[in-house]
Amino acid sequence: MAKVKIAVIPGDGIGKEVIPEGIRALEAAGRKFGVEYEWTEFDWSCETYHKTGRMMPEDGIEQLKQFDAIYLGAVGYPGVPDHISLWGLLLPIRREFEQYVNLRPVRLFEGVPCPLAGKKPGDIDFYVVRENVEGEYSSVGGIQYEGTEHEVVSQQAIFTRRGTDRILRYAFDLAQSRPKKHLSSATKSNGIYHSMPWWDSRVEEMAKQYPEINVDQYHIDILTANFVRMPEHFDVVVGSNLFGDILSDLGPGCTGTIAIAPSANINPEKNFPSMFEPVHGSAPDIAGKGIANPLGTIWAGAMMMQHLGYDNIHDSLMEAMETVLRDAKALTGDMGGSATTIELGKAVEDAI
Amino acid sequence: MAKVKIAVIPGDGIGKEVIPEGIRALEAAGRKFGVEYEWTEFDWSCETYHKTGRMMPEDGIEQLKQFDAIYLGAVGYPGVPDHISLWGLLLPIRREFEQYVNLRPVRLFEGVPCPLAGKKPGDIDFYVVRENVEGEYSSVGGIQYEGTEHEVVSQQAIFTRRGTDRILRYAFDLAQSRPKKHLSSATKSNGIYHSMPWWDSRVEEMAKQYPEINVDQYHIDILTANFVRMPEHFDVVVGSNLFGDILSDLGPGCTGTIAIAPSANINPEKNFPSMFEPVHGSAPDIAGKGIANPLGTIWAGAMMMQHLGYDNIHDSLMEAMETVLRDAKALTGDMGGSATTIELGKAVEDAI
Ligand SMILES: CC(C)[C@H](C(=O)O)[C@@H](O)C(=O)O
Ligand SMILES: CC(C)[C@H](C(=O)O)[C@@H](O)C(=O)O
Repeated sequence: MAKVKIAVIPGDGIGKEVIPEGIRALEAAGRKFGVEYEWTEFDWSCETYHKTGRMMPEDGIEQLKQFDAIYLGAVGYPGVPDHISLWGLLLPIRREFEQYVNLRPVRLFEGVPCPLAGKKPGDIDFYVVRENVEGEYSSVGGIQYEGTEHEVVSQQAIFTRRGTDRILRYAFDLAQSRPKKHLSSATKSNGIYHSMPWWDSRVEEMAKQYPEINVDQYHIDILTANFVRMPEHFDVVVGSNLFGDILSDLGPGCTGTIAIAPSANINPEKNFPSMFEPVHGSAPDIAGKGIANPLGTIWAGAMMMQHLGYDNIHDSLMEAMETVLRDAKALTGDMGGSATTIELGKAVEDAI
Repeated sequence: MAKVKIAVIPGDGIGKEVIPEGIRALEAAGRKFGVEYEWTEFDWSCETYHKTGRMMPEDGIEQLKQFDAIYLGAVGYPGVPDHISLWGLLLPIRREFEQYVNLRPVRLFEGVPCPLAGKKPGDIDFYVVRENVEGEYSSVGGIQYEGTEHEVVSQQAIFTRRGTDRILRYAFDLAQSRPKKHLSSATKSNGIYHSMPWWDSRVEEMAKQYPEINVDQYHIDILTANFVRMPEHFDVVVGSNLFGDILSDLGPGCTGTIAIAPSANINPEKNFPSMFEPVHGSAPDIAGKGIANPLGTIWAGAMMMQHLGYDNIHDSLMEAMETVLRDAKALTGDMGGSATTIELGKAVEDAI
């Protein structure tokens, strides 16, 4: 029997509540298709930080290396500044494991009310491909004259050709594999002087190798407006770390799926484990109440299995999720229902 | 009779078509309220660049200094890279005249179809206050190993305490003047290591001086989703140059007003002329056809007169605009009508 070894990091807040439901769904699909899992849980979180001064042990990355994939709930909690919790756990994992692709699907489902007027399921179905390890998320920089009225803060963004070309290649390959063969690149070359005109030139260069793909470029300002105005237009949207981050929250915001959107942090070469997580955060306001929506985690689990080559498990989870959304009998409060996290998780299990 | 001296820069593409309609509307309101204008036109544009190698003459800024305000159409045209046309005209004017506030209203009008489901006029009515001269729009940086596969691009963002505090003060003052007294700050302190945690700390510091104002902060990713999910929530939204740019396109994107949104580049101290322009660009695809929508330019003109102390002219232009939108008899193609630029301009004139 095939066996997959998964490192599980529930993290903080509702992370701890949704991960068990993700595991429940994966186990159910595993039973169906003869796949066994070995789950190894790591309690790394803001609590760990309070106890030890670190989000994860010094050899944390080393410990994770032996797994096939990492399944993460959510990281961050009041009392620990975000840039500490994130730069102490999530971001180093993305970086050290060269998970340079952040892949986020945007889909309008039957049963999920769409905030945009006049759209129906099928109208919106695209991917945001986000560069996940360099660019604007950079710790290079600092503060001069700190604490005085003359403070000057310098924040650097660093783009490399290697880093840019490999994310573009991934995005072009993905576009090539889809019927529409359409790629949109997010830029801001009219305002951001060095990095963005250069980004555009890399897109143009890469486009030459994919003559079948219809490529367009939008400045990030109008691109966000276009997500609202004409979401049907998009197929694969590629952006830098920051632009991709924005677009991959806005996209699900436009389909009413922000609470259930997944995020796949992928190392395409499979040199290192990839990491799968829901897009939502630790949601301190509802943590501990058992009412968090586990579908983002389940969807992330589906993407994890697809990455590991188990398309059957992916498809089975997605179908179960679609059924549960359509039936609307066991939805959590954020979707207008009154089910608990566990009830919704069990509904997905039943549907599998 | 009061006389205002306006520098007019129609610029490129549809800029040349919409500016005359702005002037028409301003003239009509001027006649009504006894205000005379002196219009001085500057033909600075991408054409100028082709002829002279510069977007504006070397003493361009000097020439503009003597005016009460600057009225701009749109800058940029295929054939001249954006970062050249913008950094050669629009951006230096913003910077040299310390127009550090970019103020952009987001409103849902009667007669304008809203892309969001279930919203009605009055539901959405807020301002985006954007830092307009520093931050992410920076020419500091460059390319190492240029042209080789080892290329590294460094793009710096520079924030100063002076620059940040003054935009925050403007935003807090604006929030203080409004019934809801609510300010939202855009951040990304969980990903962008130096500038954004520092930005947050400046917001907290400023908030202490405005105890009546209800302040919240959102990371830019979820903030864009929230513009779609709950636009009613917002009153005054303040953001850095880049975040403000994004939000002030997305906001009008959510109200169906992207084609008619105005942009006020304000030097609040009135040490220098301020500049008023529509948000839309030069729109090469429809330029020369006489079908561009002039309402953004007219709305920008209204903001210009308000800045110069003529609230009566501002109000009269806004009422005329609202009437024309509600009547929907003379709208341009982008709003589902079949009027020309001039016909829509004349309809506003008649309504005044
Ligand atoms: C043209 C461009 C440089 C400009 C900006 O980003 O400032 C425009 O998008 C705007 O918002 O006025
Ligand atoms: C928590 C934060 C650092 C993270 C990011 O911006 O990458 C999150 O928003 C995400 O998108 O996964």
